[in-house]
Amino acid sequence: MNQPINLEVFFVSDRTGITAEALGRSLLTQFNKGDCRYTVLPYIDTEKKLSALIQQIQAVKNDNRQIIVFSTLSDKTHRERLINEDFFVLDLFSTCLPPLQIAMKQHSSPAIGQTHGMGNQNQYLARMDAVNFTLNVDDGLRTRDYEYVDIILAGVSRSGKTPTCLYLAMQFGIRAANFPLVDEDLEKGRLPDALKPWKAKLYGLAIDPISLQKIRQSRMPDSRYASIEQCRKEIKLVSSLYKQENITVVESSNMSVEELATTLMQRAGLQRQF
Amino acid sequence: MNQPINLEVFFVSDRTGITAEALGRSLLTQFNKGDCRYTVLPYIDTEKKLSALIQQIQAVKNDNRQIIVFSTLSDKTHRERLINEDFFVLDLFSTCLPPLQIAMKQHSSPAIGQTHGMGNQNQYLARMDAVNFTLNVDDGLRTRDYEYVDIILAGVSRSGKTPTCLYLAMQFGIRAANFPLVDEDLEKGRLPDALKPWKAKLYGLAIDPISLQKIRQSRMPDSRYASIEQCRKEIKLVSSLYKQENITVVESSNMSVEELATTLMQRAGLQRQF
Repeated sequence: MNQPINLEVFFVSDRTGITAEALGRSLLTQFNKGDCRYTVLPYIDTEKKLSALIQQIQAVKNDNRQIIVFSTLSDKTHRERLINEDFFVLDLFSTCLPPLQIAMKQHSSPAIGQTHGMGNQNQYLARMDAVNFTLNVDDGLRTRDYEYVDIILAGVSRSGKTPTCLYLAMQFGIRAANFPLVDEDLEKGRLPDALKPWKAKLYGLAIDPISLQKIRQSRMPDSRYASIEQCRKEIKLVSSLYKQENITVVESSNMSVEELATTLMQRAGLQRQF
Repeated sequence: MNQPINLEVFFVSDRTGITAEALGRSLLTQFNKGDCRYTVLPYIDTEKKLSALIQQIQAVKNDNRQIIVFSTLSDKTHRERLINEDFFVLDLFSTCLPPLQIAMKQHSSPAIGQTHGMGNQNQYLARMDAVNFTLNVDDGLRTRDYEYVDIILAGVSRSGKTPTCLYLAMQFGIRAANFPLVDEDLEKGRLPDALKPWKAKLYGLAIDPISLQKIRQSRMPDSRYASIEQCRKEIKLVSSLYKQENITVVESSNMSVEELATTLMQRAGLQRQF
């Protein structure tokens, strides 16, 4: 068995560092780690910032921690300078561009990427629109706008509807509404009138009672709302409602908003809107 | 000069595919592309799904488009099967794990990553909390809770406050409030009372009048609110307010929510909350 290793991890980027961090963290799950510290260093886009960063990394070098740098710097000169330091750098562009150049029968050039500014502004507008639309139809509001939504999520309180809808809007430009199923709906044992015409784009969130209880407990400690009995009751009723109305169910327990959103995109056959 | 190349791009993952897509799109900006089609194929986590995916990719092969597959599959057997097909695959795990193994003096193992389930649930709770908190203090609501927020964004209507706050909450677990500066505040030429005690965590969004006008126009076409005169007036007044009150300004024109959020994290010295 491998000994756990202590790490000092840096995610370096000339933009936000979000991609470097996501890929780096994903690769690191495959190792047996001890104590780890993580630092994101975004917007490293000048010689000066690069020098400061190299100094910062050199300053934390010690025998008890392995330094690991994940970099998505795109500038070739910057990349070469960073790689030539005496700490470990996984430079994703230097690693990935050579095989891509062969497949594309082209040389890569950082200048090309920078000419596509408009994509960003349209993307921004599409996302702003979707986020604002989604906020307006949050929590069962403005059901008269359901004609224009791409997807509707139903579920009991705190099953993850709102964050998932917002992520769908922000990441994919999807107009996502959410509708809370409350005791009154559940006891009637049928779908609220506002949802009936929209079953084709309606999805039900399910969650196990223990996870739901934990979430509600952190929100309203020791309330009836957060009791395990109440959670069990609501989950039982909502599950039979989904079954009876033939609604596609997506399980949200232990799922991140990214996972839930991607699963819903796939189930509903939705495409990114920008 | 390179000829533009037509592409059929696939992002393959055993999870959401968000990382594969982000890195792949970032690498592709460095090439001269013609007509491109992009497909995300998430949750490829069984032999059967892998076979279906290989069939799908084989079926679109033709002489006019180069196939490029970006993969973050973590299962070694699945990776090897995909790589052995006769189309181009950039397998990020196969490419990145070998140098990491040397640096870590360990063999990688997919089993290790899967044992860290609790991280996800705590992450989920932290994000749920931050997203819900942020919704509750959206658009100048509940300023009495400003004691508990990590950052406050001020700005004129449609300068990008709400999506940025939601992204800060969702991605980093930051409690972010936003406060709209309306005509009345701007004409008084001083900070609204609710903001005065919190200047240490207050940031002002700036945007150029043309971008603002475009965004407002898509929201309320041909209104006074969307006129270039109104946009110019508000931007002029808000800029002098920021200056007079010595508020740090972040420029939101042509910035994505990711870029804005990362910039604000950096300026405010905030750390990811999970």
